[in-house]
Amino acid sequence: MRILVLNPNTTASMTASIRAIAEASASPGTEIVATEPLWGPESIEGHFEGYLSAAAVLDRLATYDEPFDALVMAGFGEPGREGAQELLDVPVLDIAESAAQMAMMLGHSYGVVTTLDRAVPQIRDRLLTAGLLGRCAAVRGTGLGVLELEADPERTVGAVVRIASEAVERDGAEVICLGCGGMAGLRDRVSAALGGVPVVDGVAAAVRFAESVVGLGLSTSKVRSFAPPRPKAIGGWPVSARPS
Amino acid sequence: MRILVLNPNTTASMTASIRAIAEASASPGTEIVATEPLWGPESIEGHFEGYLSAAAVLDRLATYDEPFDALVMAGFGEPGREGAQELLDVPVLDIAESAAQMAMMLGHSYGVVTTLDRAVPQIRDRLLTAGLLGRCAAVRGTGLGVLELEADPERTVGAVVRIASEAVERDGAEVICLGCGGMAGLRDRVSAALGGVPVVDGVAAAVRFAESVVGLGLSTSKVRSFAPPRPKAIGGWPVSARPS
Amino acid sequence: MRILVLNPNTTASMTASIRAIAEASASPGTEIVATEPLWGPESIEGHFEGYLSAAAVLDRLATYDEPFDALVMAGFGEPGREGAQELLDVPVLDIAESAAQMAMMLGHSYGVVTTLDRAVPQIRDRLLTAGLLGRCAAVRGTGLGVLELEADPERTVGAVVRIASEAVERDGAEVICLGCGGMAGLRDRVSAALGGVPVVDGVAAAVRFAESVVGLGLSTSKVRSFAPPRPKAIGGWPVSARPS
Amino acid sequence: MRILVLNPNTTASMTASIRAIAEASASPGTEIVATEPLWGPESIEGHFEGYLSAAAVLDRLATYDEPFDALVMAGFGEPGREGAQELLDVPVLDIAESAAQMAMMLGHSYGVVTTLDRAVPQIRDRLLTAGLLGRCAAVRGTGLGVLELEADPERTVGAVVRIASEAVERDGAEVICLGCGGMAGLRDRVSAALGGVPVVDGVAAAVRFAESVVGLGLSTSKVRSFAPPRPKAIGGWPVSARPS
Amino acid sequence: MRILVLNPNTTASMTASIRAIAEASASPGTEIVATEPLWGPESIEGHFEGYLSAAAVLDRLATYDEPFDALVMAGFGEPGREGAQELLDVPVLDIAESAAQMAMMLGHSYGVVTTLDRAVPQIRDRLLTAGLLGRCAAVRGTGLGVLELEADPERTVGAVVRIASEAVERDGAEVICLGCGGMAGLRDRVSAALGGVPVVDGVAAAVRFAESVVGLGLSTSKVRSFAPPRPKAIGGWPVSARPS
Amino acid sequence: MRILVLNPNTTASMTASIRAIAEASASPGTEIVATEPLWGPESIEGHFEGYLSAAAVLDRLATYDEPFDALVMAGFGEPGREGAQELLDVPVLDIAESAAQMAMMLGHSYGVVTTLDRAVPQIRDRLLTAGLLGRCAAVRGTGLGVLELEADPERTVGAVVRIASEAVERDGAEVICLGCGGMAGLRDRVSAALGGVPVVDGVAAAVRFAESVVGLGLSTSKVRSFAPPRPKAIGGWPVSARPS
Repeated sequence: MRILVLNPNTTASMTASIRAIAEASASPGTEIVATEPLWGPESIEGHFEGYLSAAAVLDRLATYDEPFDALVMAGFGEPGREGAQELLDVPVLDIAESAAQMAMMLGHSYGVVTTLDRAVPQIRDRLLTAGLLGRCAAVRGTGLGVLELEADPERTVGAVVRIASEAVERDGAEVICLGCGGMAGLRDRVSAALGGVPVVDGVAAAVRFAESVVGLGLSTSKVRSFAPPRPKAIGGWPVSARPS
Repeated sequence: MRILVLNPNTTASMTASIRAIAEASASPGTEIVATEPLWGPESIEGHFEGYLSAAAVLDRLATYDEPFDALVMAGFGEPGREGAQELLDVPVLDIAESAAQMAMMLGHSYGVVTTLDRAVPQIRDRLLTAGLLGRCAAVRGTGLGVLELEADPERTVGAVVRIASEAVERDGAEVICLGCGGMAGLRDRVSAALGGVPVVDGVAAAVRFAESVVGLGLSTSKVRSFAPPRPKAIGGWPVSARPS
Repeated sequence: MRILVLNPNTTASMTASIRAIAEASASPGTEIVATEPLWGPESIEGHFEGYLSAAAVLDRLATYDEPFDALVMAGFGEPGREGAQELLDVPVLDIAESAAQMAMMLGHSYGVVTTLDRAVPQIRDRLLTAGLLGRCAAVRGTGLGVLELEADPERTVGAVVRIASEAVERDGAEVICLGCGGMAGLRDRVSAALGGVPVVDGVAAAVRFAESVVGLGLSTSKVRSFAPPRPKAIGGWPVSARPS
Repeated sequence: MRILVLNPNTTASMTASIRAIAEASASPGTEIVATEPLWGPESIEGHFEGYLSAAAVLDRLATYDEPFDALVMAGFGEPGREGAQELLDVPVLDIAESAAQMAMMLGHSYGVVTTLDRAVPQIRDRLLTAGLLGRCAAVRGTGLGVLELEADPERTVGAVVRIASEAVERDGAEVICLGCGGMAGLRDRVSAALGGVPVVDGVAAAVRFAESVVGLGLSTSKVRSFAPPRPKAIGGWPVSARPS
Repeated sequence: MRILVLNPNTTASMTASIRAIAEASASPGTEIVATEPLWGPESIEGHFEGYLSAAAVLDRLATYDEPFDALVMAGFGEPGREGAQELLDVPVLDIAESAAQMAMMLGHSYGVVTTLDRAVPQIRDRLLTAGLLGRCAAVRGTGLGVLELEADPERTVGAVVRIASEAVERDGAEVICLGCGGMAGLRDRVSAALGGVPVVDGVAAAVRFAESVVGLGLSTSKVRSFAPPRPKAIGGWPVSARPS
Repeated sequence: MRILVLNPNTTASMTASIRAIAEASASPGTEIVATEPLWGPESIEGHFEGYLSAAAVLDRLATYDEPFDALVMAGFGEPGREGAQELLDVPVLDIAESAAQMAMMLGHSYGVVTTLDRAVPQIRDRLLTAGLLGRCAAVRGTGLGVLELEADPERTVGAVVRIASEAVERDGAEVICLGCGGMAGLRDRVSAALGGVPVVDGVAAAVRFAESVVGLGLSTSKVRSFAPPRPKAIGGWPVSARPS
């Protein structure tokens, strides 16, 4: 089984670290391939960048010519997934939903620790739309930008642990979700610092869920919301096919 | 006051009819300018096309060099608005939310009549995210595609009236929202056929609301969700600036 | 266009200040007329007074003999509006709903700053019933009574700013609604003190929305909830017609 | 223990039938006194009449000079209760909430059968505000006006049974609430016709709950929402004290 | 009328104190009988013990051979009630739901003060399932275990008062529910210490509601959720009939 | 990895068919062991039986002396899971939640097809408590009892397909969940008859999710809701250890 993991931003070092987590999380026999869009923002920290990235991700998928059995979209709470579900026949997993779903298997309620405070309403809305907000005790930001996460790992771990502790102690979270693809490598250190509170990384969860769905021979329902796009003229598309 | 009305698809005749409705709906002294993206789908009937359109609309805004006082986004339930709210300093109105809000001023609950059945969950999700679903009695599709609406206006009016009647009689809707920018000219005929049930066109509502917000000297809050995009590298952007 | 603005209490100085805000908020060509009930409480700070006021407001409308094109009801979260919607053919706007709706056009979520703490559940219930609570981050009281607002404007501004800041910083509000008709003149000072957070005054919003609805030729749906009252005996009514 | 039962309309025959049900439902040792407002509508079938009635009911209470231990308000889903809760020190029960609460003791979900279809949204809103809508499977109207209920009892029973059956069979209601004070005498016949589905009459439920609360020495909380009205000038009040 | 009150744990002293409260709360003419399961945990402080208790309670009911007119189940938020509703023809009241329902008759919103923090999500879920969470301002734990409540009554009162005050002042509760059968005797002292905030004991409320339902000739609906168990083989049941 | 699959009833043929599905669904290298309680009902079709089964299942776990890495509980919407989560250190998956979660990965909304109509509210409540009801379009019963499913497989497939079609066409379900452990073998035939609508079997989903959680080194959070039971006297427990 081959799973394509899509980093929604253009920062190759993030693609590499997401790939590493995906590989470390996959079952034996699963091949991970990872890529990023050919254009778009270097990190996604708001709606504007999220929408650009969504189109750039779809553009990447429209021109990707290797086969794969499932897609994992590695933006946490970012738009675009439903478009990929329409475009592709293989299952599409999203790391925000996968993290929340796995957390709900492990505890009564979960908290999300993310980057900037401005991402909090966006993540909550995404979970609301996905029907997964009911068991969310809190979404809290660390104040660190996406690209700052890798710059000083010690500071990042400290900030994530501090905010996660608040989610556990004040908000009643029983499980913590790491709310950014760029936090993927921190799971064990954060969990240890929290005294054994389970910590879920969305990339890991999504890879395992992709294997589960593919393993059972299932894929996206095409009967309504995610039916294939209707045939029509789309000017200037794919963008990546233009001379540039 | 100048209001920019953005048709999210590339079909110029739809831009023209949306402009006509906007002009007919605006107060004296309001200037309407209308445009469409430079690339993207000719109509939007699903998430894939919606996400392409969102980026194409943002691309259009990024390269639009005339001043305007407010933006009306004329896609019903389609993504992209929050990106424009970050990007711009002027207020941004969306026709789905505006239609729902005006309907809630007129009756206890409202119904939406849209194009294809596949759009129904997407519109419901959009209203849910906007916090406007509570008074929505129904979202129902006519089965007509976006570009079919103009092809046979008689059939379109008949279909809209039939589905709207179901929303009123079975679902308890007290006001009907026309759930597609392409239905904008049908308001009076549908309302007459429904025996005086108020019918709200989102373009008209959004234009008036844009005037209201601008008139009171208000604009988008920049304190959290819609703060300006952070400075960062965005490769290959704007798309429309590339040689093509 | 003539808009009737109804102060729900009998304090003429509040009618005057509400009229002033309404006039300052209206478009050119809109005439504002303002009045108050002929009997009832001098201020409304609870359900008992709210219900008396509702009947007194309807009594005022039943005997009001000048024409008007829309009604703005200037009690924040107070009962009575649905009765006026049944009684009248012209549109009826309510300042609590209008403030919330305009706030939702400007930011992801909003907070309401009101007078006494006891009004908080009442306002929340009103927004719940209106289907507008989903995006409400907080309703908070300043502890000042309605008639205290005018007594010491400096203290009032200070209290409103302090409570509004809490709503922004602790609750995540991105827009502030002034939750009492008596706060109508404070908008600019509060917004400046909050560093540019948009501040919405419900009277201003409702006047603009009334213009919008009238301008589009729309009015209250009469098909169900707000059908005209059925013909029947109503003893001792209108109250204001009795010798007193 | 003496319970005051307040018919919200001025039709004395309805007061009499409500008193009869209350007496038949009360425990031994409970005295029922019943009255109606001194002015206002002869029946309540909408918001306008509901608001008039709310003030007329409060007016009646303000001038009622006999002692009582609890108040039962016999309008189904009509406004005014919170005002009485502020005004009085004794507990105040409402027949819509009491019917719903007793129904929830008896089955998983309940349906309400009421008079005109236009009352349906009003009742739903009342249950929503009371926090009791979650287990409501349906609110359905019979199409009969309040004063028609008594005019032809056979027709009334037939209509109630037919609509109640729909609530049971289509909507999954397991208990039926009679949604109008004027239906109070029909309980046994409707239940028998429904094959033993429990049928709750709100007057009966409210009388028993009033006894329960009084028997335990409890009354309305005065710490916030229902604190006594603040001292203030209320012009022309009580209305019933005026010469007329 | 005879009401059976079932303490869900096997601690006879708790049965005795629950019986005492039930007797003190009942109307003249109501006979209280109280019992506990023949096996199972000595106190219930989590789901595991709750599920054991549920079966042990049903086992007790299956072998109980005295007649009774209603059952009061004295576990706060613990499972099992729906099983008893299927098994019995007489009405079944639960102290958590009864406390919440009586609290909703007395104030706008209520708080629950319970034992251990781990019980909080369980109680919230129970109220959610019962459709009674909407008016719940807070569920808070004192940190005291069930059997600790009786060990040091002074400490218990102090802890309950402190936590209840937080629910009133921080969360806006207007009524307090004692969230454990073992707190049943504390009502008056807690209410006095809270300055008159009404305090509801679930055993007392349930006894009164049982009287109410029986008094009106009503019982559990058998049309769907609580139809009698279908005839079938149940091995090793009742457990208490086995030689042990 | 060894997964214990627990059939909640005592019918060995159902254990066998559930084991078969689990084995067919597991990854290579996963060992499935299956068992059933030592006492309790032969099938579960209501709350009474569900609560007996919950205790019998916990009893079985308390005396089960082989090691396992995860538990799959094969009752659809039946109680008991939280007790096992407290009792065990290994992860515990439930087939109702797993089916719903996998369905949400595949489509916008899902429907559940179950056995008797009386199970419908129970399943809905379970999904509500789990925070998974938001995307549930419908729960519908076939009218077939649990043990009838195996008696006439042709009839069963026909009934499931008919009811599933209603969920797709009338309710908008995009994915179907088989709502009973006894339907586990029908997946492919039902999906084919529905024209490719994905059909999720909860046993299969839960086995895969158990592998996923174990594979990532995660287990139940012990910080609050599912902390181990406190040490205490539990009389007559385990039941299966008694001489019988």
